[in-house]
Amino acid sequence: MGRITVRKPVLRLSTAGVRGQRPDTLAVEEPLEIRIGGRPLTITMRTPGDDFDLVAGFLAAEGIIAGAGDLAGMRYCADTHEQNTLDVVLAAGVRPPGALLERAFTTTSACGVCGKASIEALRADRPYDVAADDVELTPKVLAGLPDRLREAQRVFDRTGGLHAAGLFDPAGGLLAVREDVGRHNAVDKVVGWALRAGLLPLTGRILMVSGRASFELTQKAMLAGIPVLAAVSAPSSLAVELAEDAGMTLIGFLRGETMNVYTGAQRVTV
Amino acid sequence: MGRITVRKPVLRLSTAGVRGQRPDTLAVEEPLEIRIGGRPLTITMRTPGDDFDLVAGFLAAEGIIAGAGDLAGMRYCADTHEQNTLDVVLAAGVRPPGALLERAFTTTSACGVCGKASIEALRADRPYDVAADDVELTPKVLAGLPDRLREAQRVFDRTGGLHAAGLFDPAGGLLAVREDVGRHNAVDKVVGWALRAGLLPLTGRILMVSGRASFELTQKAMLAGIPVLAAVSAPSSLAVELAEDAGMTLIGFLRGETMNVYTGAQRVTV
Repeated sequence: MGRITVRKPVLRLSTAGVRGQRPDTLAVEEPLEIRIGGRPLTITMRTPGDDFDLVAGFLAAEGIIAGAGDLAGMRYCADTHEQNTLDVVLAAGVRPPGALLERAFTTTSACGVCGKASIEALRADRPYDVAADDVELTPKVLAGLPDRLREAQRVFDRTGGLHAAGLFDPAGGLLAVREDVGRHNAVDKVVGWALRAGLLPLTGRILMVSGRASFELTQKAMLAGIPVLAAVSAPSSLAVELAEDAGMTLIGFLRGETMNVYTGAQRVTV
Repeated sequence: MGRITVRKPVLRLSTAGVRGQRPDTLAVEEPLEIRIGGRPLTITMRTPGDDFDLVAGFLAAEGIIAGAGDLAGMRYCADTHEQNTLDVVLAAGVRPPGALLERAFTTTSACGVCGKASIEALRADRPYDVAADDVELTPKVLAGLPDRLREAQRVFDRTGGLHAAGLFDPAGGLLAVREDVGRHNAVDKVVGWALRAGLLPLTGRILMVSGRASFELTQKAMLAGIPVLAAVSAPSSLAVELAEDAGMTLIGFLRGETMNVYTGAQRVTV
């Protein structure tokens, strides 16, 4: 596993002048090339560590695999000393993807894309019915999640530079936490961990993220069968529209004792 | 121009129970499809507004165009009511790009990528020599930038959901500010605005971003000829390495009266 943090000298200044020079701990960002059967698929910038989970989660979010059984193997390329190229072998019968760029355009029709079309395109691809998930949560459990996530973050306090994603049960128990310079990577790592452990769909689980809730993060949660997405910050319009369409519970501004429930409020018992 | 914010009903809860239902203002996130000469290039999720700037900045960051003269025209596709597809006409002699996916792989050699290779690959593509930029800044001017950026953000205070990027002169004067759900988009919008106004390279300018400083944002600043990148939060390891290699000044944790200078401290006079 690569390094998660690195030390760099930094000049600390204030408006009053120089405060001194000291080493500062930074979150590591390195490219990871993902290959399928030796063929390059994409490159993502990520924090090293949990790369197998990251790749499994990424492939699940792209609809390429749906469970651990779709993966025959993964290995770092042997002819490099850096662990920045990961080759995936898909199980027999699993169709390898075309170029991701081409795939992105399967959702467009005629001249024009729109948020509604993006959501509708996802309807055909939903492996799990999150709308049917009847898990119940209390505001008290939800209010406790940000602190639990923060406590479980190993690196943030040293660098201030990492996003976190955590998977919780309805009692607030932490099942997994992952950190990354990219918040989509942190979510991919959590989902990929669950996929590889045979835990998909993540029925009755809560995904908590340290930042904002975008369309992309909501989509990743939905494709993993997670009924509840909670974020410390604001959701985007399209995140709310997708959560509504998919029957997910979307919670934002989860801070202190309060929170905003944008969709799926029937799961929160007050 | 599309809507930047949208109102959605939200259930406000606390651990003590329901606090009420009210409309909440959200930042709009919508897909934008970028085409070149009618051929789809990519789709990005963005906040509508300043789309021409966004596309110009994106194309500059991809090395496809280097100045306003490389653009013959841009227009929204006419056969859609949504303004979510933008077609670019390149000037005569400007080479249209291959697929972005292919381009991403021109930087890889043999089996393996690494941060060092990513930085070296950029060396050949640098249109401007930011290392030679001898602009001088004071800690006092730098310390004032976050407040100025925040004041200039039109939408953040209403939604809490947008990243901002601002372009400043060495006296702290604000030249441009843009907001977006994606921080890379906010930077593309600022750079694209400058490119279309014929202001590249942005010699002596400071780019200030509301979040963290990643490799990608540092790269975008470098390709626009900006010598100084300042961020409210932490830089990543690769952002620091690229700034060092390119001779840029990289400042992080710019908050209150203090800041960390990671590279290019000779430009900061104390």
